[in-house]
Amino acid sequence: MANDKKMVEQITSMDVDFAQWYTDVVKKAELADYSGVKGCMIIRPYGYAIWENMQHDMDARFKRLGHENVYMPMFIPESLLQKEKDHVEGFAPECAIVTMGGQNKLAERLIVRPTSETLFCDHYKNIIHSYRDLPKLYNQWCNVVRWEKTTRPFLRTSEFLWQEGHTMHETEEEAREETLQMLKVYEDFYSETLAIPAVTGRKTEKEKFAGAKETYTIEPMMHNGVALQGGTSHYFGDGFAKAFDITFTDRENKIRYPHQTSWGASTRMIGAIIMTHGDDNGLILPPKVAPIQVAIIPIAQHKEGVLERATALKNELCEKFRVKLDDSDYSTGWKFSQYEMKGVPVRLELGPRDIENNSCVLVSRVTREKVAVSLDNIVEEVEKALANVHKELYDRAARNLAEKTSVAHNHEEFLEIAENRPGFIKAMWCGDAECEDKLKEETGGVKSRCIPFVEDHIADTCVCCGKPAKHMVVWGRQY
Amino acid sequence: MANDKKMVEQITSMDVDFAQWYTDVVKKAELADYSGVKGCMIIRPYGYAIWENMQHDMDARFKRLGHENVYMPMFIPESLLQKEKDHVEGFAPECAIVTMGGQNKLAERLIVRPTSETLFCDHYKNIIHSYRDLPKLYNQWCNVVRWEKTTRPFLRTSEFLWQEGHTMHETEEEAREETLQMLKVYEDFYSETLAIPAVTGRKTEKEKFAGAKETYTIEPMMHNGVALQGGTSHYFGDGFAKAFDITFTDRENKIRYPHQTSWGASTRMIGAIIMTHGDDNGLILPPKVAPIQVAIIPIAQHKEGVLERATALKNELCEKFRVKLDDSDYSTGWKFSQYEMKGVPVRLELGPRDIENNSCVLVSRVTREKVAVSLDNIVEEVEKALANVHKELYDRAARNLAEKTSVAHNHEEFLEIAENRPGFIKAMWCGDAECEDKLKEETGGVKSRCIPFVEDHIADTCVCCGKPAKHMVVWGRQY
Repeated sequence: MANDKKMVEQITSMDVDFAQWYTDVVKKAELADYSGVKGCMIIRPYGYAIWENMQHDMDARFKRLGHENVYMPMFIPESLLQKEKDHVEGFAPECAIVTMGGQNKLAERLIVRPTSETLFCDHYKNIIHSYRDLPKLYNQWCNVVRWEKTTRPFLRTSEFLWQEGHTMHETEEEAREETLQMLKVYEDFYSETLAIPAVTGRKTEKEKFAGAKETYTIEPMMHNGVALQGGTSHYFGDGFAKAFDITFTDRENKIRYPHQTSWGASTRMIGAIIMTHGDDNGLILPPKVAPIQVAIIPIAQHKEGVLERATALKNELCEKFRVKLDDSDYSTGWKFSQYEMKGVPVRLELGPRDIENNSCVLVSRVTREKVAVSLDNIVEEVEKALANVHKELYDRAARNLAEKTSVAHNHEEFLEIAENRPGFIKAMWCGDAECEDKLKEETGGVKSRCIPFVEDHIADTCVCCGKPAKHMVVWGRQY
Repeated sequence: MANDKKMVEQITSMDVDFAQWYTDVVKKAELADYSGVKGCMIIRPYGYAIWENMQHDMDARFKRLGHENVYMPMFIPESLLQKEKDHVEGFAPECAIVTMGGQNKLAERLIVRPTSETLFCDHYKNIIHSYRDLPKLYNQWCNVVRWEKTTRPFLRTSEFLWQEGHTMHETEEEAREETLQMLKVYEDFYSETLAIPAVTGRKTEKEKFAGAKETYTIEPMMHNGVALQGGTSHYFGDGFAKAFDITFTDRENKIRYPHQTSWGASTRMIGAIIMTHGDDNGLILPPKVAPIQVAIIPIAQHKEGVLERATALKNELCEKFRVKLDDSDYSTGWKFSQYEMKGVPVRLELGPRDIENNSCVLVSRVTREKVAVSLDNIVEEVEKALANVHKELYDRAARNLAEKTSVAHNHEEFLEIAENRPGFIKAMWCGDAECEDKLKEETGGVKSRCIPFVEDHIADTCVCCGKPAKHMVVWGRQY
């Protein structure tokens, strides 16, 4: 074979160096590449195709619930960003600022959007007048910029892609429902599409989004026990509406402020897929977002009839699945490794003997078991295999989440777990930010993830200060 | 009726003030709105849904030809933009520049991308090594910024949305084929999807893209005879490859430079739709991109059975079409005007008498003729009506293009036509940029649109200087 020299390169083992394993997978599965622009990444075709599949799925979920897509400018005049005090305080430190345009110094500096609450509010002020104009259920898919010192592809980059929903409602109740509904949409998307289980709940005061009254979060656990904030949904009350003077005439003909939400999820989710499902052979993609769901590898492809039958198989399958037939002159072993590295959920091997038996060999990327299946009902076999991959990925991640979640009854136990057992810690909390700060410092980074919707009663007192506990909190390190 | 006060507002007549008509339609059909950000527009849900339909259609055309989507950073380090001399000269005057990041002055200024040739080249340098790595057929959907002094929604804004294809090839021949193929893709998209006929051809030296060897263009004519550059496809040769030191080992094991193309089309196309098809009643949308293809208006909707039958009709149609049933309490007249303003291609009216007759009234947005059609085969009737709307729009625009294209045999005739007959002028040209400059000055803005692929022989000499003619050029004013 001409290409033995270009064998699939080894990747670092997860257990040896998880961070290096991550970088290897990103690079060798050709998901992303570093760019010459500090802190910004290039999303390569294979990575971008995953994003497109995610967008397609999420966008349909949003639209089914009545949301409409719009596009706001990517620049925010500095004075506009400053209208809501908490918001600007939260974002000012990480802004990229345009000061020159068309070879002239600008009269007012423009912030490259880190998020677009202020722009949506500026627009809502012009288009919301009556209760008849509500609700406004808007979403946009766009790029945003938050200046970062240390960056990692997908997880933390100065520019990233995301969707940001921004809605306005007649009543607090309706806005609060929307906030929780959209968290549920994320939760369903994670489990049904990405095969990722997660903890969901409310952020503590300290961890809230800048300007929000409540922030809800979805927190999947990565294979190494570290959390990734996977999406957030915020309830704003009428704080921005007041700051931007957005009012409407209600059903009783009174002038009132509308109630607002926003919710967002980003290309970070690709990082979550990698670190939740991947293994030492590379990426494993949940079938619903895999750019290639089925790789067909012809065996002894120079032999008569093999490529013809493989092509017929491809044509049959690609009516229903995303299929790649690799008839390149790379060696069979290279191809096996390559599609494993790229996380293709199902591989079909088809050689002369298989064709004689009217069968092919089906290999699941998760179990790596080889099973001979009949070509007569190959569509059903592949369908079943893909469903199994999804289920196995979900179950495996759920086991990891359960196994790596510990309970700390007291301070000593908390510190012991934080030091020795990677993962989440369930522990009681008094409600004071000081205790969050102290635990974070003592453990070198364990923070409150969220107050889950259902709180276990673990103890009566705060795991940190010993005062009466208000909540059970899930704690953990984060990306 | 509660809402008689909110009747559909009048729009300026096209013949009275075409520019004001355009602005009225953009605003009142709720396609876009001005933002508080100088030169940037808000694309509202109805406008964005058109863009989504256009993206969906174009993206499928690109992918069928083997193109893959990627995402490049939106910032270009100043030194990178400067690598290709002609390119930076063309774009430097209209750049927005980031000078601050994370509260610090940046060591190197970052240009907000006006186009991404330089970023693609910087990446191609890292991923192209052998002829086996070619061709690279990449595209990206993104926002770009070109600082503009005077702006108009969709037609000219400082930020706009577009797709930019960037490809690399082994040979000049292959790259040239790609350049022309992608122009053809635009041409097909304009005619098959937007129902817009256009002139296509090669730009003169003076009108080429900064850094290109050849620029091809599609130039539809707006209703008022003014051209809109609707999409361009560039052949670069190996100029950028040399500037960026991109080389590959060819089939004979020699080191060579690859040949490059790029091609782009933007949200301007929404402007083209408005100005090609619209009339004094508002927008007319080509059915393939209309967010609502069929508006169902119940007549006497309070009467028993009307809303039920209208809902059943909607359910039947929405399997195949994008349908809106308007059962709001606005008056019937208001609804008629509203959906005409919004350019919905087909309206169905359904009242008690229609239901008795098992029929409904079908109204085409183009002809505005009312026809009673049977409810039994309503899907076929609507399908036929939509196909007719597409055809009528195309034919009408083609007639406009033909009627408003004149032939100038000499200088005097050229100036006379430029002054008195809006539209395109076919005339001979010697090949000198000086003549282009002179004609533009004399006419107050008539420029060469392109050298069409098939040139008529109108005269032997240049319409400006009288020297021997090299080409027939299509001339016209432009947006």
